[in-house]
Amino acid sequence: MADRPVLYTCARSRGLRATWAAEEAGVDVDLKVLPFPPRYLAPEYMEINPLGTVPLLIDGESRLTESCAIAHYLATRGEFTDLAIAPGERDYAEYCDFTYHADATITFPQTVYMRFAIFEKEKGWAEAGEAYAKWFEKRLVKIEQRLETREYLCADRFTVADICIAYALILAQNVGLDDRVPHSLKVYRERMTAREGYQRAFAREEEGRKALEAD
Amino acid sequence: MADRPVLYTCARSRGLRATWAAEEAGVDVDLKVLPFPPRYLAPEYMEINPLGTVPLLIDGESRLTESCAIAHYLATRGEFTDLAIAPGERDYAEYCDFTYHADATITFPQTVYMRFAIFEKEKGWAEAGEAYAKWFEKRLVKIEQRLETREYLCADRFTVADICIAYALILAQNVGLDDRVPHSLKVYRERMTAREGYQRAFAREEEGRKALEAD
Repeated sequence: MADRPVLYTCARSRGLRATWAAEEAGVDVDLKVLPFPPRYLAPEYMEINPLGTVPLLIDGESRLTESCAIAHYLATRGEFTDLAIAPGERDYAEYCDFTYHADATITFPQTVYMRFAIFEKEKGWAEAGEAYAKWFEKRLVKIEQRLETREYLCADRFTVADICIAYALILAQNVGLDDRVPHSLKVYRERMTAREGYQRAFAREEEGRKALEAD
Repeated sequence: MADRPVLYTCARSRGLRATWAAEEAGVDVDLKVLPFPPRYLAPEYMEINPLGTVPLLIDGESRLTESCAIAHYLATRGEFTDLAIAPGERDYAEYCDFTYHADATITFPQTVYMRFAIFEKEKGWAEAGEAYAKWFEKRLVKIEQRLETREYLCADRFTVADICIAYALILAQNVGLDDRVPHSLKVYRERMTAREGYQRAFAREEEGRKALEAD
């Protein structure tokens, strides 16, 4: 038990990619749910992760802070599992591309929107936030085209690429950007979040969040 | 010749990660340098890449648009080379983490800064841009700590993790954020950009850029 990986996260944050991947990969992680935002509500966390961001995965000597990296890592920790795609396999290039695309191109504009249009609304930068909401919407075209003829993003099976991208669509729903998400991607999101692995991950995070509230 | 990968980019953009990785990996790419920004100055590019972003790598049927994904892909296209780190190898977790960290956490705030403080300065959002310059600076801590005792980010050798991260530091210099970069990271950047592979990549892009200007 002492050697199982520890995953720090906040419920429904980008860390959901990591919690979800752990469930799908069958990696037994010690899930530690923090209040949001941890840098103010759990300042001792800064000693563990000087970035103050979630998620953080500690696995032996290794420490990872990128949600998509953690999801991919959990699926390839010992060796490549079916949740990832290995070099030489069909759709390897696309798998690489979508796992990076999810955060660097699709989630990032949403975080700028959230900051300016929601968290720091009083600063008068809401319009700057809206500019990134529009940016987010325009960048969905690649996923939309890809899923026109496919159930999953890569290799006709569920992979970490779906976890990474689906979370960006879940976030859109949570922060009020869903009117910018095309219907076909909502259907895809519904299919992904109906998975047992997602449901278990979501439930684990909610349990952690409720325990915090009860404190 | 017909089958070599085609790399579309703009000189000194994030695509430099891809051009650099191609040189280091010895992958012979057909480099096509576009004017910046392509969506206005080379509108026909939108037909090839509806996102309008650079870089774009076309390799057979595959199309990749994420600079860090392309760099990693070029280093693992046939099989894992020494430029990448394979599952099971020392620092595999860190290699995954830093290749995602480079764009999703370090480059992204710079792009917000560039937009609000440089490209769209007239909109009065310069202060919102500065907020992301500060964000960028604070997020350098992880790289700084990692390189305190290391010459390279992972496994005591040059890898794509260095390409991904070093480019973010090169960008900082190009867009006027260098006073926020600690000295130790400037020294690291200098070491990385002194590499022959980087010098060749930079020269190829400049050649393409000058040919455009001569048109």
